Amino acid sequence: MSERLEVPAREGRGLKVSAGQRFRVIDLEGGQVADTFAFCADDVSEFHSAEHTRVHVNRLFPRPGEQFVTNKRRPILFFEEDRTPGVHDMLCAACDPWRYEGLGVEGWHASCRENLETAMAALGFPRVEIPQPINLFMNIPVGGDGALGWDPAPTQAGDHVVMRAERDLLLVVSACPQDIVPINDKNPTPVAIELL
Amino acid sequence: MSERLEVPAREGRGLKVSAGQRFRVIDLEGGQVADTFAFCADDVSEFHSAEHTRVHVNRLFPRPGEQFVTNKRRPILFFEEDRTPGVHDMLCAACDPWRYEGLGVEGWHASCRENLETAMAALGFPRVEIPQPINLFMNIPVGGDGALGWDPAPTQAGDHVVMRAERDLLLVVSACPQDIVPINDKNPTPVAIELL
Repeated sequence: MSERLEVPAREGRGLKVSAGQRFRVIDLEGGQVADTFAFCADDVSEFHSAEHTRVHVNRLFPRPGEQFVTNKRRPILFFEEDRTPGVHDMLCAACDPWRYEGLGVEGWHASCRENLETAMAALGFPRVEIPQPINLFMNIPVGGDGALGWDPAPTQAGDHVVMRAERDLLLVVSACPQDIVPINDKNPTPVAIELL
Repeated sequence: MSERLEVPAREGRGLKVSAGQRFRVIDLEGGQVADTFAFCADDVSEFHSAEHTRVHVNRLFPRPGEQFVTNKRRPILFFEEDRTPGVHDMLCAACDPWRYEGLGVEGWHASCRENLETAMAALGFPRVEIPQPINLFMNIPVGGDGALGWDPAPTQAGDHVVMRAERDLLLVVSACPQDIVPINDKNPTPVAIELL
């Protein structure tokens, strides 16, 4: 059985994924960041944690064959396959209303934080902690002196990762609406989640 | 007026710091990590955020003259002066009971997470989110391929940083009790907070 959920440009979507189930996150048109979040289905106060995952794998980002862990250091996602140039980020906060305000945007701007909150509310959880996201396809080079760059995602249309749920979880993916800094080449496009 | 609060080895302490007030965090004996946390006094759901601060300064860690910001991207700490070798970390989660369990410790082991919770409870807040800490003096080299090292803190006795509170805050410092991996040279020692 395969189920496919398209995430429109600038929006987010969430769904339940059962323990052991595999899924793809696909960059449909290329050059697009997908902010990805995973919460434990039986207790949403436990969720994937960037800072615990870095310690778990001794790296800034897991490699295929490694796991993402929760804020209780339990496995939540297994990174099975990477059909992209292998560039992802786990250093940068989800964009949020204050980010766009700081970038000079007047009035409302879609954000990954709001997309996460909307998707989790649709799943029955209107109030959750906002984890540091797994920013798939996001290109944040780290210089030798610790300086961060903001480069366009290097993905081509159809590039994707395959993950496996290590426990029952609520998965949310946001097609990042960032159009001021060049991480999406200033052209936000859709992504997709495919249950395998 | 100067007020000094010693943080015993393996323990944590918290105190209120008023907007504009400056303070030192001092490594008393050298080679010791100080996990540091700042919460807004008027709303502890707003706190220093590593992932927002990295975006704010475009670096893994602020330099003197730069600010740490909150999860609402508002300034909370100004990094005034660094009287250390300049090595600090903002990538690694606070150590917690699950960390020590994973390292093979049987039974209870002090942790920065519990130290934070105890200190915040003493200030009247028994339940708070656990931020990614500002790990002062912590030596986590980042390799060109994103690999992380776990090296002893390079500080000498008396080395310290000076910070300024950008708003009224609750400051917590934990003298990290880690004695399995070598970040404290396997010998946890005390630190101090000095209000200037």
